[in-house]
Amino acid sequence: MSFQDENLQKEKVFRDPIHGTIIVDNQIILDLINTPELQRLRRIKQLGTTSLIFHGAEHSRFGHSLGAYEIARRMCNHFQRNYPQLTPGDGRWDDKERSVALCAALLHDLGHGPFSHTFEHIFNTNHETITRKIITQDTNVNRILRRVSDQFPEQVASVIDHTYPNPQVVQMISSQVDVDRMDYLQRDAYYTGTNYGLVDLDRVLQVMRPIKDGIAFDISGMHAIEDYIISRLQMYLQVYFHPVTRSLEVILDHLLMRAKHLYEDRPSLSEFTPDLLMPFFNQATQLDDYLALDDGVLTTYFQHWTHAHDDILADLANRFLNRIPLKSVIYDQSTVNLIPQLQDLITKAGFNSKYYTDTNSSYKLPYDTYNPKEANPQSQIELLQPNGELVELSSVSTLVHSVSGHAQGDERFFFPKEMLGETDQTELFAPIYQEFQSHIQNHTIIKH
Amino acid sequence: MSFQDENLQKEKVFRDPIHGTIIVDNQIILDLINTPELQRLRRIKQLGTTSLIFHGAEHSRFGHSLGAYEIARRMCNHFQRNYPQLTPGDGRWDDKERSVALCAALLHDLGHGPFSHTFEHIFNTNHETITRKIITQDTNVNRILRRVSDQFPEQVASVIDHTYPNPQVVQMISSQVDVDRMDYLQRDAYYTGTNYGLVDLDRVLQVMRPIKDGIAFDISGMHAIEDYIISRLQMYLQVYFHPVTRSLEVILDHLLMRAKHLYEDRPSLSEFTPDLLMPFFNQATQLDDYLALDDGVLTTYFQHWTHAHDDILADLANRFLNRIPLKSVIYDQSTVNLIPQLQDLITKAGFNSKYYTDTNSSYKLPYDTYNPKEANPQSQIELLQPNGELVELSSVSTLVHSVSGHAQGDERFFFPKEMLGETDQTELFAPIYQEFQSHIQNHTIIKH
Amino acid sequence: MSFQDENLQKEKVFRDPIHGTIIVDNQIILDLINTPELQRLRRIKQLGTTSLIFHGAEHSRFGHSLGAYEIARRMCNHFQRNYPQLTPGDGRWDDKERSVALCAALLHDLGHGPFSHTFEHIFNTNHETITRKIITQDTNVNRILRRVSDQFPEQVASVIDHTYPNPQVVQMISSQVDVDRMDYLQRDAYYTGTNYGLVDLDRVLQVMRPIKDGIAFDISGMHAIEDYIISRLQMYLQVYFHPVTRSLEVILDHLLMRAKHLYEDRPSLSEFTPDLLMPFFNQATQLDDYLALDDGVLTTYFQHWTHAHDDILADLANRFLNRIPLKSVIYDQSTVNLIPQLQDLITKAGFNSKYYTDTNSSYKLPYDTYNPKEANPQSQIELLQPNGELVELSSVSTLVHSVSGHAQGDERFFFPKEMLGETDQTELFAPIYQEFQSHIQNHTIIKH
Amino acid sequence: MSFQDENLQKEKVFRDPIHGTIIVDNQIILDLINTPELQRLRRIKQLGTTSLIFHGAEHSRFGHSLGAYEIARRMCNHFQRNYPQLTPGDGRWDDKERSVALCAALLHDLGHGPFSHTFEHIFNTNHETITRKIITQDTNVNRILRRVSDQFPEQVASVIDHTYPNPQVVQMISSQVDVDRMDYLQRDAYYTGTNYGLVDLDRVLQVMRPIKDGIAFDISGMHAIEDYIISRLQMYLQVYFHPVTRSLEVILDHLLMRAKHLYEDRPSLSEFTPDLLMPFFNQATQLDDYLALDDGVLTTYFQHWTHAHDDILADLANRFLNRIPLKSVIYDQSTVNLIPQLQDLITKAGFNSKYYTDTNSSYKLPYDTYNPKEANPQSQIELLQPNGELVELSSVSTLVHSVSGHAQGDERFFFPKEMLGETDQTELFAPIYQEFQSHIQNHTIIKH
Repeated sequence: MSFQDENLQKEKVFRDPIHGTIIVDNQIILDLINTPELQRLRRIKQLGTTSLIFHGAEHSRFGHSLGAYEIARRMCNHFQRNYPQLTPGDGRWDDKERSVALCAALLHDLGHGPFSHTFEHIFNTNHETITRKIITQDTNVNRILRRVSDQFPEQVASVIDHTYPNPQVVQMISSQVDVDRMDYLQRDAYYTGTNYGLVDLDRVLQVMRPIKDGIAFDISGMHAIEDYIISRLQMYLQVYFHPVTRSLEVILDHLLMRAKHLYEDRPSLSEFTPDLLMPFFNQATQLDDYLALDDGVLTTYFQHWTHAHDDILADLANRFLNRIPLKSVIYDQSTVNLIPQLQDLITKAGFNSKYYTDTNSSYKLPYDTYNPKEANPQSQIELLQPNGELVELSSVSTLVHSVSGHAQGDERFFFPKEMLGETDQTELFAPIYQEFQSHIQNHTIIKH
Repeated sequence: MSFQDENLQKEKVFRDPIHGTIIVDNQIILDLINTPELQRLRRIKQLGTTSLIFHGAEHSRFGHSLGAYEIARRMCNHFQRNYPQLTPGDGRWDDKERSVALCAALLHDLGHGPFSHTFEHIFNTNHETITRKIITQDTNVNRILRRVSDQFPEQVASVIDHTYPNPQVVQMISSQVDVDRMDYLQRDAYYTGTNYGLVDLDRVLQVMRPIKDGIAFDISGMHAIEDYIISRLQMYLQVYFHPVTRSLEVILDHLLMRAKHLYEDRPSLSEFTPDLLMPFFNQATQLDDYLALDDGVLTTYFQHWTHAHDDILADLANRFLNRIPLKSVIYDQSTVNLIPQLQDLITKAGFNSKYYTDTNSSYKLPYDTYNPKEANPQSQIELLQPNGELVELSSVSTLVHSVSGHAQGDERFFFPKEMLGETDQTELFAPIYQEFQSHIQNHTIIKH
Repeated sequence: MSFQDENLQKEKVFRDPIHGTIIVDNQIILDLINTPELQRLRRIKQLGTTSLIFHGAEHSRFGHSLGAYEIARRMCNHFQRNYPQLTPGDGRWDDKERSVALCAALLHDLGHGPFSHTFEHIFNTNHETITRKIITQDTNVNRILRRVSDQFPEQVASVIDHTYPNPQVVQMISSQVDVDRMDYLQRDAYYTGTNYGLVDLDRVLQVMRPIKDGIAFDISGMHAIEDYIISRLQMYLQVYFHPVTRSLEVILDHLLMRAKHLYEDRPSLSEFTPDLLMPFFNQATQLDDYLALDDGVLTTYFQHWTHAHDDILADLANRFLNRIPLKSVIYDQSTVNLIPQLQDLITKAGFNSKYYTDTNSSYKLPYDTYNPKEANPQSQIELLQPNGELVELSSVSTLVHSVSGHAQGDERFFFPKEMLGETDQTELFAPIYQEFQSHIQNHTIIKH
Repeated sequence: MSFQDENLQKEKVFRDPIHGTIIVDNQIILDLINTPELQRLRRIKQLGTTSLIFHGAEHSRFGHSLGAYEIARRMCNHFQRNYPQLTPGDGRWDDKERSVALCAALLHDLGHGPFSHTFEHIFNTNHETITRKIITQDTNVNRILRRVSDQFPEQVASVIDHTYPNPQVVQMISSQVDVDRMDYLQRDAYYTGTNYGLVDLDRVLQVMRPIKDGIAFDISGMHAIEDYIISRLQMYLQVYFHPVTRSLEVILDHLLMRAKHLYEDRPSLSEFTPDLLMPFFNQATQLDDYLALDDGVLTTYFQHWTHAHDDILADLANRFLNRIPLKSVIYDQSTVNLIPQLQDLITKAGFNSKYYTDTNSSYKLPYDTYNPKEANPQSQIELLQPNGELVELSSVSTLVHSVSGHAQGDERFFFPKEMLGETDQTELFAPIYQEFQSHIQNHTIIKH
């Protein structure tokens, strides 16, 4: 049975605060949405710890998945309406690709777990690998995809890992201006209540066009693309790189690390029973173990841990749950060597610096031209000129050229706010605190 | 130390998608926000099961609490700017009431637990009682409030339970147009992506004025109040009373009931270990037990239960987590007597009708004049005329008069969708399904 | 050449604050937009004097025309996607109707002139007649429409005056829920900065469906239609019926009337030279005379008239241009007979009551069922039930039933604000003012 | 009588789509709003010809004036709440400056006429000079201001021309981040329907603080200022510099120039009677002449001129009124010398190149540090660090540094679209058109 055979007689509509309506007109898509694998994403926050800083941003990956699907659907419609394939290989849009594009858009985040970034770091998992497994192994999602064909799950997975032969479909899902980013920038801006991420989605979609090697933009829409590049940068600088967000990620990271170390030291320890985490501690996870995790599972264990005998575990769990962030200061190459000195002072003040300090470097390259020599070369954005030739964005946009190639962000050292003497203190540690503070000015480590 | 003594030198600002900025200018308020008791509200969804229908509405009670505080702050400012007390008892605003008003607004939802409505039904708890306990017993919140005075916690609690002597403060927190409703209507509308709940908050605040007996509205703003009444009604009809929301509440209710019954039957059963729920099963809860609950804790146990030996428990947990709602049909007085007959058919089709069917009646009175004879008399809305006399809203507003006194809503009977034969089925039950369906037309139970 | 033959290879997009993008994909539509007849609508405010009260609402009929077109385009797409005609006469959508529907939507307001309501009253013109003339007589618009066929202009005109045979097309342009109202409610709400008029356009469109006799709504969308009915009512009560708007319309009406009277008395009077109005004073207008008028033309003459020798003309022109409204009070059947008495007092205070007083009755029927006996029967709204039967809206919606059949609004008497003694005054008139004010309380005429 | 003496007992509120509510709490402000001089701004579009491209942007300078006032009011409140003067000269906010600040904000655009930029170019007028005259000469505005004191009008005027002694007040009205720009960026974005201009006004206001030399920003709000700088740049590139807007300004400029030339050649010419423009043609204008002009007056004359005997006057008037823009191509230093050659071809094709061609150079410096050597040095933006020291924005913001000092924009040559052969043409001019087009590629002049 083909994908088209399962088109619905009447569209089903999801109301969405970002896109207004999300329209589903095919039974395959509807069935995929109703799988436990996708429903699980309702229990995983899109922005992890960020909601502890931007309290409005409590939205889950479920809405984002629907949103990415909806943008893909609108792109397919736009392409089919304006640039339908006339002869095979003419570089225009072949609407037979719609099925694989829509499914890939809907399922692209399927493998995400709770607080993915941090969790993966500690437990050595990888959400992309898991996404692929959920699509291609024996799951509800897989059974539904196989209604299209036996090869279909593998095709969908190959779009997500960039190996699908049609570059238009691949770029729709993963490129500088893909359905993933277009949805999350809008969605995160809406829920945080910032307007930095607002991009003119209608306009961006309107100027997109399929070309032989992927997707280009009509040069008449250059300003909408500039706006997109800048908006994305601003979301990074103002939301994703927020120092307090990073501080809470440090706490989460150290909390999980402490639990892991405790378990490794005394695996028989019955003091805490994170049943659903056990496979991860034991490094023997099945796909089902992974699918059983969500934000609530983790925070439930954290609640138990606040009563643990181990002081560090209990304290870190309390700091995370009740939002008691570490403080941070900026450092650079000239002051990085002062950090061990600061860590000594922190140790003297009674904190285990392994668990109560950390560094984090967050940088974003606003845009760059394609450079195959780089570890992770960015795809570049191509504009289509009236004479049919392509031109790379930063070569015509003064604005993008200005910001191109310069990574923006900072490097921060995190430590307990007690060191700033902002909390009650005995006189005992006062001299230590004073020395610590003498190394800091304007939220930055300074040399004497 | 007085509340004013703890005013901040520089305001602290929370960004909020609904109100733009939430301004905190007092250390007491800031410290209250940072208590574990208030931070816990981040882990409790404002709308419970509604986010399973309106996927955007995953916001928590934490943001709502801040929002209610912010509206109260703006009201105090508006009153103090325009109607400051000149002589005691003149019916104008005494700004010394600001402290108790702001704290009550911020803390009014403190006692809510996960899926409160349903949870309270099963475990016989009451969020209002718990709110009072958190404020007046030995908690972080209480310790902070006592910095103002020993009587202050009790005063704040008395505002929330309507016994505080100043009627302006009481009505600010609880009345037809209070800070609670004004925030949640806007917030729920924003997050669901509907615009029914949008009210002209600026305008409503602008026309509010303190009077001797509470709060009235300048008659020049009558239309803004009309709009508020209608918007509220529409949110009830379209969001809060959504049949699928109610269906998932039925499932949740029956799931918890099943767990409770299983535990009561065999309390030693080790099959499921909902540690944090035990005090509730045992009916021996402390305040701390209650504070340890949140949405994630419940759904974590539900995950465990999907693997339970008890089929009903496992199935209901699965239906709730993976959003497999019951279907529903409308009935009225003339068809309510057909329900036992339908339940028989459902039993014949293999479902335990105690757990798989239910009825629910949801009605909202759009507005009513004060009627002391009613069980739960609504406060009425008074408008202030140019000559200084008050007039009751529905006596001058044709629109409000039209909808006044007529409750709106419906009564529904819930049952498994299998009965509609929409899912795969053996031929075995086909005749039962057919008979069942013959009693239903246009989503309504009909007589033959 | 058919309409389809002129489809554009690439869509042209207008950015619109209400609809995001307005997409033109046909050369006929593009050429119609570029005619002087349609461009003229840029110089005619959508809401006339309302912008003097809601200062944000300075938008013109041009944007509204594009908006109505865009909604029609989306309706055609929705119908064609979901309910395409399978066999002639099956009551589904015949996409050959698209051309006439889109042109009628775009052109439906073509005959409007400056401050139409008032202007038509004084000069006995009629914008509907003029719309028909512009479409069917020798104009740029007509020449473009005739590219489709010789009959096409007449067909488009017949849609606008409800005589076109296909009821779906007629109702798309003129019915309770037509493209005209759906656009202007949203647009006027956006520009006034009120949110009363906000309707869930996506949702309303989504539940529309063609039926044999026109257009019905899926009953699942009933709440969206309720919201539409109520929003429309609120826009009437709060924006369109605003007393100050009506006051400025009274002034405008009397200003034009005074000019006409002056001219009729002394046609040779060279004192004012409203060249472009002359044909209207002389009651010998050609279509071109009408097309030469716009808001700016009228206000330019008003500026000249502020220097006129005739005191009344000069004063009324000044009041209109510089926004010096009359005051108003409400009356009803029991107090209407007091108006002559009030007018006497106004005359005694030195005002020509013919020009300085007036009455205005503004009522809106929120909704009504079809009643062929009424002068101007409203079409009723039909909902489609799952079993395929239609049901009239107010028979199932408690909310609509509540407001149905009860006209809302008021009757007001307008007079100079000097009578309220709010401006400087000699003692001379003080007793007159006092007597006048004794008849008024709470902005209402009262009996002694 | 002091300004404070005229504070209103009850605030008056204007509803505004951008700021929600505009609050007036002083009779002086209310009376200024009601002057004919300020009401006249309702008849002058904020963005002139831009509404011909962004059809939603038909808003007038009146709303902008109210908006600038409202932002100034909020700034004063924020300053007074957080940084009230404690001792004279302490660099904090002296609330006695409120009166002059609010009046200057409200009146800063008073001297603008219709299509100011172009009009001033042709008739050698200057809106800043006229603003000063309206404030300081015998006008309604002046009479109201003098209620505060005889010196008050001069003080208000001195704020607007930057000579007022208090730098905080001056920078509030004129600086990189002043109430003028903050209002118009938001307002223009709202009405055009673009979101480039959206800035986080709440956040920007929140981080502003008075300092000795004017106004600085708390460094914690740096990202909000970055966003402001970039948003402003994007509004320039995408809205204010739109090529079609500039094209219609060229037509308007040439139309007025043609009229002036015709009048200078034959002053007795009675063919057109632009009575209200005569003083400008005669270069003998009084303030009242200027105040009699508005957009409608000009377009009324343009309508008359479409029937003029002079072909060029009639054609240009028609092109302007009916939106028939010139086309444009980009040139630079290497191709500017080709323009005379292109003009020759245009002349050969039958157009008077003096009236039908032009060049326009539009560049915007996104941000620059203060450079006293420049003709028009920009004030720079200073951020306040935790240790109390100021730091210049671009020295800490990588983003602002990237765009700083590089002017963005382009230079364009305008010509009739007939040259592109897009319109019907006789074969006569075909070779000329072809040669012309051979010099153009990708909307740019190219060398052969």
